[in-house]
Amino acid sequence: MEFEESGIGEECGVFGCVAAGEWPTQLEVAQVLTLGLVALQHRGQESAGIVTSNGASPPTYTSHKGMGLVSTAFAPEALLQLRYGNLGICHTRYSTTGFSELQNCQPFVVDTLHGRIAVAHNGELVNSRALRKKVMRHGVGLSTGSDSELITQLLALTPPMEELDTPDWVARIKNLMTETPTSYSLLIMFKDVIYAVRDPYGNRPLSIGRLVPISRLHSPGAGEEDTEGWVVSSESCSFQSIGAKYYREVLPGEIVQISRFGVKSLSVIPRPEGDLPAFCIFEYVYFARPDSIFEGQMVYTVRQRCGRQLAIEAPTDVDLVSTVPESATPAALGYAQQSGLPYTEVLCKNRYVGRTFIQPNTRLRQLGVAKKFGVLTDNFAGKRVVLIDDSIVRGNTISPIIKLLREAGATEVHIRVASPPIKFPCYMGINIPTKEELIANKPEFKDIAGYIGADSVEYLTVEGLVSAVQEGISSFQKENVSSYKEVGHCTACLTGKYPVELEW
Amino acid sequence: MEFEESGIGEECGVFGCVAAGEWPTQLEVAQVLTLGLVALQHRGQESAGIVTSNGASPPTYTSHKGMGLVSTAFAPEALLQLRYGNLGICHTRYSTTGFSELQNCQPFVVDTLHGRIAVAHNGELVNSRALRKKVMRHGVGLSTGSDSELITQLLALTPPMEELDTPDWVARIKNLMTETPTSYSLLIMFKDVIYAVRDPYGNRPLSIGRLVPISRLHSPGAGEEDTEGWVVSSESCSFQSIGAKYYREVLPGEIVQISRFGVKSLSVIPRPEGDLPAFCIFEYVYFARPDSIFEGQMVYTVRQRCGRQLAIEAPTDVDLVSTVPESATPAALGYAQQSGLPYTEVLCKNRYVGRTFIQPNTRLRQLGVAKKFGVLTDNFAGKRVVLIDDSIVRGNTISPIIKLLREAGATEVHIRVASPPIKFPCYMGINIPTKEELIANKPEFKDIAGYIGADSVEYLTVEGLVSAVQEGISSFQKENVSSYKEVGHCTACLTGKYPVELEW
Amino acid sequence: MEFEESGIGEECGVFGCVAAGEWPTQLEVAQVLTLGLVALQHRGQESAGIVTSNGASPPTYTSHKGMGLVSTAFAPEALLQLRYGNLGICHTRYSTTGFSELQNCQPFVVDTLHGRIAVAHNGELVNSRALRKKVMRHGVGLSTGSDSELITQLLALTPPMEELDTPDWVARIKNLMTETPTSYSLLIMFKDVIYAVRDPYGNRPLSIGRLVPISRLHSPGAGEEDTEGWVVSSESCSFQSIGAKYYREVLPGEIVQISRFGVKSLSVIPRPEGDLPAFCIFEYVYFARPDSIFEGQMVYTVRQRCGRQLAIEAPTDVDLVSTVPESATPAALGYAQQSGLPYTEVLCKNRYVGRTFIQPNTRLRQLGVAKKFGVLTDNFAGKRVVLIDDSIVRGNTISPIIKLLREAGATEVHIRVASPPIKFPCYMGINIPTKEELIANKPEFKDIAGYIGADSVEYLTVEGLVSAVQEGISSFQKENVSSYKEVGHCTACLTGKYPVELEW
Amino acid sequence: MEFEESGIGEECGVFGCVAAGEWPTQLEVAQVLTLGLVALQHRGQESAGIVTSNGASPPTYTSHKGMGLVSTAFAPEALLQLRYGNLGICHTRYSTTGFSELQNCQPFVVDTLHGRIAVAHNGELVNSRALRKKVMRHGVGLSTGSDSELITQLLALTPPMEELDTPDWVARIKNLMTETPTSYSLLIMFKDVIYAVRDPYGNRPLSIGRLVPISRLHSPGAGEEDTEGWVVSSESCSFQSIGAKYYREVLPGEIVQISRFGVKSLSVIPRPEGDLPAFCIFEYVYFARPDSIFEGQMVYTVRQRCGRQLAIEAPTDVDLVSTVPESATPAALGYAQQSGLPYTEVLCKNRYVGRTFIQPNTRLRQLGVAKKFGVLTDNFAGKRVVLIDDSIVRGNTISPIIKLLREAGATEVHIRVASPPIKFPCYMGINIPTKEELIANKPEFKDIAGYIGADSVEYLTVEGLVSAVQEGISSFQKENVSSYKEVGHCTACLTGKYPVELEW
Repeated sequence: MEFEESGIGEECGVFGCVAAGEWPTQLEVAQVLTLGLVALQHRGQESAGIVTSNGASPPTYTSHKGMGLVSTAFAPEALLQLRYGNLGICHTRYSTTGFSELQNCQPFVVDTLHGRIAVAHNGELVNSRALRKKVMRHGVGLSTGSDSELITQLLALTPPMEELDTPDWVARIKNLMTETPTSYSLLIMFKDVIYAVRDPYGNRPLSIGRLVPISRLHSPGAGEEDTEGWVVSSESCSFQSIGAKYYREVLPGEIVQISRFGVKSLSVIPRPEGDLPAFCIFEYVYFARPDSIFEGQMVYTVRQRCGRQLAIEAPTDVDLVSTVPESATPAALGYAQQSGLPYTEVLCKNRYVGRTFIQPNTRLRQLGVAKKFGVLTDNFAGKRVVLIDDSIVRGNTISPIIKLLREAGATEVHIRVASPPIKFPCYMGINIPTKEELIANKPEFKDIAGYIGADSVEYLTVEGLVSAVQEGISSFQKENVSSYKEVGHCTACLTGKYPVELEW
Repeated sequence: MEFEESGIGEECGVFGCVAAGEWPTQLEVAQVLTLGLVALQHRGQESAGIVTSNGASPPTYTSHKGMGLVSTAFAPEALLQLRYGNLGICHTRYSTTGFSELQNCQPFVVDTLHGRIAVAHNGELVNSRALRKKVMRHGVGLSTGSDSELITQLLALTPPMEELDTPDWVARIKNLMTETPTSYSLLIMFKDVIYAVRDPYGNRPLSIGRLVPISRLHSPGAGEEDTEGWVVSSESCSFQSIGAKYYREVLPGEIVQISRFGVKSLSVIPRPEGDLPAFCIFEYVYFARPDSIFEGQMVYTVRQRCGRQLAIEAPTDVDLVSTVPESATPAALGYAQQSGLPYTEVLCKNRYVGRTFIQPNTRLRQLGVAKKFGVLTDNFAGKRVVLIDDSIVRGNTISPIIKLLREAGATEVHIRVASPPIKFPCYMGINIPTKEELIANKPEFKDIAGYIGADSVEYLTVEGLVSAVQEGISSFQKENVSSYKEVGHCTACLTGKYPVELEW
Repeated sequence: MEFEESGIGEECGVFGCVAAGEWPTQLEVAQVLTLGLVALQHRGQESAGIVTSNGASPPTYTSHKGMGLVSTAFAPEALLQLRYGNLGICHTRYSTTGFSELQNCQPFVVDTLHGRIAVAHNGELVNSRALRKKVMRHGVGLSTGSDSELITQLLALTPPMEELDTPDWVARIKNLMTETPTSYSLLIMFKDVIYAVRDPYGNRPLSIGRLVPISRLHSPGAGEEDTEGWVVSSESCSFQSIGAKYYREVLPGEIVQISRFGVKSLSVIPRPEGDLPAFCIFEYVYFARPDSIFEGQMVYTVRQRCGRQLAIEAPTDVDLVSTVPESATPAALGYAQQSGLPYTEVLCKNRYVGRTFIQPNTRLRQLGVAKKFGVLTDNFAGKRVVLIDDSIVRGNTISPIIKLLREAGATEVHIRVASPPIKFPCYMGINIPTKEELIANKPEFKDIAGYIGADSVEYLTVEGLVSAVQEGISSFQKENVSSYKEVGHCTACLTGKYPVELEW
Repeated sequence: MEFEESGIGEECGVFGCVAAGEWPTQLEVAQVLTLGLVALQHRGQESAGIVTSNGASPPTYTSHKGMGLVSTAFAPEALLQLRYGNLGICHTRYSTTGFSELQNCQPFVVDTLHGRIAVAHNGELVNSRALRKKVMRHGVGLSTGSDSELITQLLALTPPMEELDTPDWVARIKNLMTETPTSYSLLIMFKDVIYAVRDPYGNRPLSIGRLVPISRLHSPGAGEEDTEGWVVSSESCSFQSIGAKYYREVLPGEIVQISRFGVKSLSVIPRPEGDLPAFCIFEYVYFARPDSIFEGQMVYTVRQRCGRQLAIEAPTDVDLVSTVPESATPAALGYAQQSGLPYTEVLCKNRYVGRTFIQPNTRLRQLGVAKKFGVLTDNFAGKRVVLIDDSIVRGNTISPIIKLLREAGATEVHIRVASPPIKFPCYMGINIPTKEELIANKPEFKDIAGYIGADSVEYLTVEGLVSAVQEGISSFQKENVSSYKEVGHCTACLTGKYPVELEW
């Protein structure tokens, strides 16, 4: 299902870049940032912002923000303004809260006693309400509803240390991390460095890459001496677009300093004793691009394993396996491989239909999702189909697709979902419909097959999902070192078990 | 390959709609036209135009044209203007010739002695140069370089028949068809009817559909009494988006009149004795949407057969079969089925990258096509891959993809192309790079595998392609009637054998 | 009154430029054209178009058209496209007829048997209906409702003279002029020349200017050897903006050829015996910019004379003379000078109010024209005011102004109008409200002072206007030569006497 | 001179409206705000913002901001969003400082411990640097360079008074006023009231108006019972556009509360003993619209008096008096009246030229200001002209105008300036070129007539200006009450005497 259909969405993507070596750099930092952001566009299409710094003392920051896709928000003129940056951070956003749209657009930049800082944030602070009150009680007016401004002001109002020549930003970041346990992956730019920070639960992803000369991009032995710059991104899928090599993940709780001299781990803030990491399992299931790497494994591979597991847990007696294009395809291929059934395409997509204006209350509106898909009738007429979907959120999009297939001649249509039912809200950065809108909480869920018109519907179990996810990590751990000593994932939206107590 | 990459493109799509029954109609004709056009968007993204008529005596025509995608060109306000139409035709365009962009946008509308007509054209007149001269010699100034205006003026300057009360437009259309053998699929709107015309060689496609009530859309027995309107389209893929059922193709040489009273075949202009039809074989290979139906067979199925045939003609000893997403997927699945090799995805696509502004002469430009694809490394590292492509035109896009795969760990990369090499220009409506740009005409073609960096490259033969295409038709003919007594396809771009003598 | 208020408007302005000397020229022709057009913007704000030619054999034409003001329609990119022109013509348009807006935008460019021509037209053909029929009877389809296309096709369909090496465009132009007596000022560009044509009645203005080096712009003795180019324009006010000197008017009926070698009068087509010229008298009263020169006199001076004449014909016993800013100011100053009354400003204008969106049916809408003016209360409170207006068309704008002044303390408000009442439609290029909308044709006109709330209302007489206009010409004629042997003006909208018989 | 030419500009205009009586109001508050802002457009054309509140507990605020003119920034859709407001404030801005353009756009809205407030500011805090440091030292990050944010945060960080049920905003405002002496006119919206505040020196203007039913707008006896709402504005010129009557000025140092129950003066903060008010004298000379009323007198009248005074101080022996349109016209008329010389127009303006794109380094650029004006040659050829200007800032615009007039035949051109030379920077809200750019500080100033090409140049003296301004006030004071006990104006840009010590 498409994001807009399912009603569930990631809230943001963050990306940063620091040119290595002597400055002014020859590296086109603004272009790297833009392309990096484009590769994260699936994490947010509402607005985009870039801030660059020349890294001088005092630094000159240049900023541009705009509504819509990166390609809309960053016209050539805007990029030209940003071109003198030697480092920069950027952000793409899914939805706004608060009262002024462009104002909520990140990165957030403020002047403090110790200079100008810029902050880009992916996630949602579980205790933001209490923190807002705290900040306002200190006498600060907050101009947006965004956590990014809140974080920025929290960093600013740490008891000032005027006695020091330079402000101790790292101390402030550590202080911030003791005030809020999760959820955040942060990029904080100050003058000539970027601090990349991941909350102690590692709820949102953050990876580091290394820019190498294009000519050496694929030479296995390219050493650090070739480094043209460092990048940091919500997802590693952005690295290839800009000619960067995957370097490593920022660890849960880690503060990493990225400067023109390289990458340096400054500190790892621990979780409370006994708490496991809580990396969002839906990044694997749904949000991330399939070519991204988390915890040492490719997202595509995890989805394929989910499909295999689903075939074991919920087999069907049908003629062919298919998919709702495009996100469920790896799971469908996994299901086909495990079950031995042929994989066949039954729908093709009309990429252009999305943005067309339709008058309300017309017969065309009744056609609904059918407008988005072409039916490959000859591939399944007279046959029994199992259709793999990656998730069913509100149940309103799969139903007309089933109808389409039946009318075009499918004799049976079975649905298998490569993730468990979503039942609980997320307070950590994912936009999920209200509890009442979720099909899994409705009375109709008891006979969901009947409700959506399928011959049968079955879901992957939570255990099945967790094992499909963690299986790949363990094998990775064997070969690697201490970095993933503990493994744990947030399944709150499926189980209602939140990684930290909610203080709302 | 994407159109923009390969440099080969369809020039147009046409679509029309007439509301059935009493007028003013309840059918939202302007909306049907817009959605129909959206479904043909892959045939032209440069500009779009709609003309509606209320069908009265004299008729009121309303017209809107705009640059860019249908969704851009038709803002809600534009649609509102068009809403009183009871019938209409529309057009989407790929590329312009001539000196004023919006002016070249179709449909072309003119006032004639006998009233206003509107014309939408897909194709390219082989003898347009001679016809332009003829028209100008008559004293007509031509304001665009488009064949559509030329056709309109040719229809207008037929020796006027002032003695008749109503002009004989059908006679004029027949007259036009004797003046130019190919290539055209035409929609001509006059007051309250649309004439749908296909050239005697049937070079460009044209299909008719029937709008039925949404509630009866999938009832097998819905008879003609339920008809809400008639539609006519370059491709049948548009019918599903608007709730129409496939009715039939317009035959080569046929003039069909579509009015609120129904569909009526007026005439079939014959080809010169001995000439076969010449339906463009590249509609199957590349241009058409996979869910469209030509000559009784689904395009997807033909592509799959091409893949199977390719596996027979050019087998490989590899570990997996894959595709350059997305257009070559049916051929890849066919190749996999025939060869017994597993089908595996090796690339995923970043949908957003296309429109980003890139500064010239930078390292990022060197990355080229790599920016568009994510590499699913774990799916093929350490393996031998055969990559199926639907065509190789200039050879400049497959090369970086092969490099990507090798660097990510593929031990061998073989290329199999599900169509023969393109060697000759098209003068019948397809935009093909110049002879010099076509890789098949370059010296490098002799060692194309070496040139593009593949372990081997093989193409489908012309015979293989033709048999894969025609195999499905014959079986169809057995069951059906006289309509496809003769079968023939234009393979001029592959063989240099043009269906008619070129008069350039 | 503003155009939009009064509902009366000029339909077009035309402008052309040819670079002198060797080509490619150093003169920035596209910029000259744009600025020239800007200076004619008051003649049409709806759309603008420019066509340039490089003048080669065969020539390359470049064209750009757009909706709205010149500054909107001609973005920097558009100008860059046009920059290689050595000559060009352009057009700004007030209102469209016909069914497609941008399509009606001039200049109109067509390919003919003898090459490409471009036409820009100011005026309206009195016999356009008959001419359209004639052209269509010849078998030509007309794609717009504009006279410009009609003229272009009339030029094209003159019996072709294939035997000649070069087409005789001048013969075709003469032929056209015998077919339609008025109203037109035309610029016709063919390859490397512009033909500037004025109809035999001289109904619409057309003047020629000479571009000199900026440094020599004000040297009295700058001879023709300094010429950088030639310009031709609906009004001479455009010459100063581009650094051109006034050269002369195109005479009624004259065909002037402008090339890089200079200006050459080719022919003067005579009027029917006994007919006087019929230059539109409202160009003086209302349309033209005050710094333009017609028939040897400055428009401002004529307006001032109208004010003086009005003071003689319709004196008032008041304390001060004022004006509705800005177009009536010269008449008000003339009235003040003649009457000896002090000239005082009573209103100031808010330039920004025009384009603000106002919700319908609100109290703010009731405020009407008051939103547009600030009242300079202290200048007239407790005083008797005579307000000079240049014309009263529908009477709906002066009324709220009178109310404003009274409420702010004027003890009496008298209205004097510096032109006679408009009673008849114009068929020669001016957009006048329908007969029914004109206040002079309404029953209320009998007591117009009571109707609009004034203490008294008086108009200039037709004789007074004509003498104020012609007085300046006669004195000019004494000093000059044969060119204005006859003097005559069209007063059809005031008297119903049209210069030619109307063939509608 | 136009603002853009002279390089001197006002930085802002503020406007507010509260609907009277029961809520929800029938008054279209968003429309009143928009039109009020349009009437202040001359004070700032760069960006515009509106914030409305429904006045409920807690209130819902709606906000829209945009770049450009009000008519551009407030599309119909934006206005629709704002329509449910019962009160609101708005702002138009001239120039930005800081790093993000739209972000600097006012009003500034923040959440505080005690609820959301919105602030619009006209002026510039003389001690903003120190105040910024103070705020940042408290631990607040400042996201813009604007004083508006600074003021908002200063209001927020007043030691919180949690013990109170409602926050004492008035105490906070008083506190703010003790921290910064000048320059500010402020509108502060909190829930259901607007606080209108003027600094103790009254440096920037602020006036209150009363909305009455349109039908009673001009009834002298319309009492407060008719009140539909209250408005507050930088200039009273905005009142007429929206159907409001002038009520009174906010006094220097006064805090006025405006609610649906009416207008209430809460407090007047005194100046330091011995300090006079310091209302910006350039509001009279240049910035304000001529129909605005300050200190009981119309701006137009003051300008006319300046012209008269100039005629006394600096007479000329010439044939006619004229003006550079349009702002110097009242002074020119005053000069003409005093001197007995005839007032004559010599230039007319091309309103459209401003926004046209001109390629750099061309002959057309050399034409400079000449493009903007038409020359009314016949009005002055062969005559001696005195041209009145309101100010000469950099001297680069008057020079080409003098040249234009000479070349067109003026035998002498004398310049008289209706204000003294500007020599010093303004730190209180006016954008003045740097000291080096001011012609009065350049060596050329010694022979300014020679430098700009005039026959003579003379300026009004500071004493002359001050007396022309204050003459009207004194007569007003005689008739009125205590409100203007003291009279004083800021002449810092002319004399270097600033009203308060500068703490930069």
